[in-house]
Amino acid sequence: MTLTQLPADAAERQLRPAAATDARDEVPTLGYPNYWYPAAPSNAVGKQPLAIKLLGENIVLFRSNGRVYALEDRCAHRGTPLSIGKVRFPGTITCAYHGWTFDATGQCVAALTEGPHSALPGKACIGSYPVEERANIVWVFIGDIEPPPVETDIPEDLFTDEDLVFPVVSTWRANWRLAIENVADPSHAPYMHRTALRFLFVKYRAYSRIQATDNERGDGFFINPGPVELERAGTEFPGVGRYPERIWWRRMSFPLKRTMNNGSQSELRLPGCLRTNNVYWFFLQWSVPVDAATSRQFIWVLRPQAAHGLKAVWWQAYWHLFYRFLMDQFIDQDRVVVEAQETNGAFALPEKLSVNDTGVIRWRRLAARARGSRVRPDGVE
Amino acid sequence: MTLTQLPADAAERQLRPAAATDARDEVPTLGYPNYWYPAAPSNAVGKQPLAIKLLGENIVLFRSNGRVYALEDRCAHRGTPLSIGKVRFPGTITCAYHGWTFDATGQCVAALTEGPHSALPGKACIGSYPVEERANIVWVFIGDIEPPPVETDIPEDLFTDEDLVFPVVSTWRANWRLAIENVADPSHAPYMHRTALRFLFVKYRAYSRIQATDNERGDGFFINPGPVELERAGTEFPGVGRYPERIWWRRMSFPLKRTMNNGSQSELRLPGCLRTNNVYWFFLQWSVPVDAATSRQFIWVLRPQAAHGLKAVWWQAYWHLFYRFLMDQFIDQDRVVVEAQETNGAFALPEKLSVNDTGVIRWRRLAARARGSRVRPDGVE
Amino acid sequence: MTLTQLPADAAERQLRPAAATDARDEVPTLGYPNYWYPAAPSNAVGKQPLAIKLLGENIVLFRSNGRVYALEDRCAHRGTPLSIGKVRFPGTITCAYHGWTFDATGQCVAALTEGPHSALPGKACIGSYPVEERANIVWVFIGDIEPPPVETDIPEDLFTDEDLVFPVVSTWRANWRLAIENVADPSHAPYMHRTALRFLFVKYRAYSRIQATDNERGDGFFINPGPVELERAGTEFPGVGRYPERIWWRRMSFPLKRTMNNGSQSELRLPGCLRTNNVYWFFLQWSVPVDAATSRQFIWVLRPQAAHGLKAVWWQAYWHLFYRFLMDQFIDQDRVVVEAQETNGAFALPEKLSVNDTGVIRWRRLAARARGSRVRPDGVE
Repeated sequence: MTLTQLPADAAERQLRPAAATDARDEVPTLGYPNYWYPAAPSNAVGKQPLAIKLLGENIVLFRSNGRVYALEDRCAHRGTPLSIGKVRFPGTITCAYHGWTFDATGQCVAALTEGPHSALPGKACIGSYPVEERANIVWVFIGDIEPPPVETDIPEDLFTDEDLVFPVVSTWRANWRLAIENVADPSHAPYMHRTALRFLFVKYRAYSRIQATDNERGDGFFINPGPVELERAGTEFPGVGRYPERIWWRRMSFPLKRTMNNGSQSELRLPGCLRTNNVYWFFLQWSVPVDAATSRQFIWVLRPQAAHGLKAVWWQAYWHLFYRFLMDQFIDQDRVVVEAQETNGAFALPEKLSVNDTGVIRWRRLAARARGSRVRPDGVE
Repeated sequence: MTLTQLPADAAERQLRPAAATDARDEVPTLGYPNYWYPAAPSNAVGKQPLAIKLLGENIVLFRSNGRVYALEDRCAHRGTPLSIGKVRFPGTITCAYHGWTFDATGQCVAALTEGPHSALPGKACIGSYPVEERANIVWVFIGDIEPPPVETDIPEDLFTDEDLVFPVVSTWRANWRLAIENVADPSHAPYMHRTALRFLFVKYRAYSRIQATDNERGDGFFINPGPVELERAGTEFPGVGRYPERIWWRRMSFPLKRTMNNGSQSELRLPGCLRTNNVYWFFLQWSVPVDAATSRQFIWVLRPQAAHGLKAVWWQAYWHLFYRFLMDQFIDQDRVVVEAQETNGAFALPEKLSVNDTGVIRWRRLAARARGSRVRPDGVE
Repeated sequence: MTLTQLPADAAERQLRPAAATDARDEVPTLGYPNYWYPAAPSNAVGKQPLAIKLLGENIVLFRSNGRVYALEDRCAHRGTPLSIGKVRFPGTITCAYHGWTFDATGQCVAALTEGPHSALPGKACIGSYPVEERANIVWVFIGDIEPPPVETDIPEDLFTDEDLVFPVVSTWRANWRLAIENVADPSHAPYMHRTALRFLFVKYRAYSRIQATDNERGDGFFINPGPVELERAGTEFPGVGRYPERIWWRRMSFPLKRTMNNGSQSELRLPGCLRTNNVYWFFLQWSVPVDAATSRQFIWVLRPQAAHGLKAVWWQAYWHLFYRFLMDQFIDQDRVVVEAQETNGAFALPEKLSVNDTGVIRWRRLAARARGSRVRPDGVE
């Protein structure tokens, strides 16, 4: 069955999921608590405290004796951010204002301006966050339950000995829900990314019928662009005209044809991470809520089976001298449209979902399956 | 009767209109719906979509095959502004995100990423606006009634074969109500504009008694600066001092004396357009609401009877090489004071209207006569 | 008794004042009315009107015939700020818009655009403020009671014939309550200001036990850093480490030792002015509320007994060529931490006061003793 042979009423039936639009508001503005989140690249966290914001919470990260610490970014005393303080003693951070010093658990262990015999230590504390370092990323657990092992939440692809991993971090002036719905929706690619430099010489599919199925873990779904329809320039759209235009230098049929023939697909998991591969490259994109109007995208580009030998040298050079510029331009296309949606207040405006929004709809429905959620359809926590 | 002979009690009586202050709040913050508004100069609207805002509404303008279109600036799908999209097919605009394509009526006529057989066309739509092009301006009708012919709302002076027309557009960081009240109030001119370069060599009246009468159309009023009192330097203001200072190089008595002797006056009409002439030049100023804190002034400067022959060459040069700089400085004097009022929250502060505010008071009372208003004193719609 | 010999339970008892935290909200966001406030340096107020904001009120200052005037910064007519106007006649200010002219009492005394026979003068007015000039500062009284003589509220130290006075004005992007609590709390100095260039060669006390006693006037309290404990590098803080580090070039024991031995101390008075001396220098800092998120610090640095002769020459040079840069850096350390507190929303966050916050606690309790306050513990006002 090709897409063009779908009976009209079947297409019609598929339009119905649009009714699920309401689930849009069940996705929390500041993200899902009770998950591990990528907080910063490891090399950004040193002895100099680093202020970050995750799910609306102000957090200070610092490193001492090789270990990373994550505390509430607020001195218990009078609210000064600890991130303007200093790591003065091992495993602690000292406030810039009065020298109150907090350990990994957030306990005040010294009040320098009160002297060594101060009665304060043990009587004041701030919040602390479970924190781990894996795959050159500092991970922080936000939530109020006992955190699972960090490996539970990190995409398994990052625990690689064989692949080269290139991280890209991008801050968008848009709520994370707009960013993640962009990721949950591969149907924009053949239109919006058609002009990406990555695809300059590539015959790209003109349109698609998105297909999705739940994953086995119950925390996400697989999604793929459906039957591959290679670009056939000049298809007639009734009453409108021909699309897309034929471009003589577009001759390559990869990566999509081969990718699809290899059965590749994407998987989107709670709390908001997409894994996708296309034979030659593997991508991960994690949309991290910062505050109501800001999100940060942690993106990993993996070159499989290229971690060793001459291959590693070649692909490192390929990435740093060439491919990362293409990826930056590609990611920026998403950023521009998502920030424009934010400016337009798109998440609150009326919307009209369609057959190709099955990923968006499934994504929203995951709200009921989020970890720690009170309402779980299956009764399981 | 000269102004100086007005009996004190008559002046006292004239102070009473100040009670009408309350009508201030009847003028809507975002302007009067159900009128045609100047939206953009014609030459600013091309194939590249243009985002504008009128009366708080986000609108995208674009031109295709010579005609101009005005649509709601929001894709029906997921709220992306269409103004970052593209005119891809004649008479339509295509969203940058998924290629949803909308025609002049706002109907979705294609969903490029769903292919030519998508069931979507005809099932999604956005708002569209009546739009016309006249006198090198794109006019958009905002409202919910059947729009009258655009000529009803365009000042007749713009349909000219004989006059040279020079348009000036200026965006002010102030609500339109402050901008239009500046226009409804000619009494500020002899004080505030006394320093305008236009009047550098001109004897300007020192003060005035504003006079106003309703117009025949019932949608506005005529207003003039009252009996002309040429600048008499050094008039004694009791208990204060002499004003204005005598400036030896101010010798010309035009334009005001001649203008007034010719019976010229201004007319302010709903929804907010002033026409004023002074024999040699003719001015129109339309204050257009953008959002709560922004307005745009469409100003037309006309040189009557100068559209043809050598006269046209001369006055074109005069304008472009000289006079428009004087007009810019003149308009900027208004902008500065109106933006300062906005910053001060002037429209909500207590006020004290006086005899010379008859224009402001009449302007506010027009609220009851606005097109489509439920309350019309004459019972006519 | 040295600090290290304080019995643990005594220290414990001293922790109790932390319960007074609640008084935090009794200090008004925009400051205490019914006091004279420093508004601007005298040399900043000339014929050109100056817009300032005090306790959230917009005020225009101007000078005419040597006297300074303070009026509400709003024309009675239609809300234009008078600060964009002009001093046109002696002892009055004229609005830029229509030439309405107001005298020292805020009465409209002329409406230039209505001519010399206008009925308006005497029928419109704006607010005016008691204003005085003393010690090269313009003082404005904000409140609704009969103002006391300005000398009541000006620190007596400014009426000096013997001392050199160097004023410093600094605007902080933080509410005044954070600024004044910084001033009420000398305990931050030995930690935060340890790195001030002023103390580069000075052995500074490492910690202190703040002591405070009410002043005789009943409008403030004396506060001092307690028994002087000279820096003893390498004190062991249990479980944490040694502090502070020994710095070989820190050899001077002044100013603190000598200062303390002379019994010097600081005094903080309503509505928010600290006086402090250290034998060689005398400091005043007045935290003035501007708006909810801004305050202005008026700081005076006095060199006692140096107003005359060669001493004056020497200390003028010392200040202008050297010491004011040290003071700027010193003040900036406070500004940075206070602005960081504001950004963190510190005043609303939970806090944990301690023994050394006795100044902060006493400061907050003064709320009940503020002039014109309805609640006065002594029943007087």
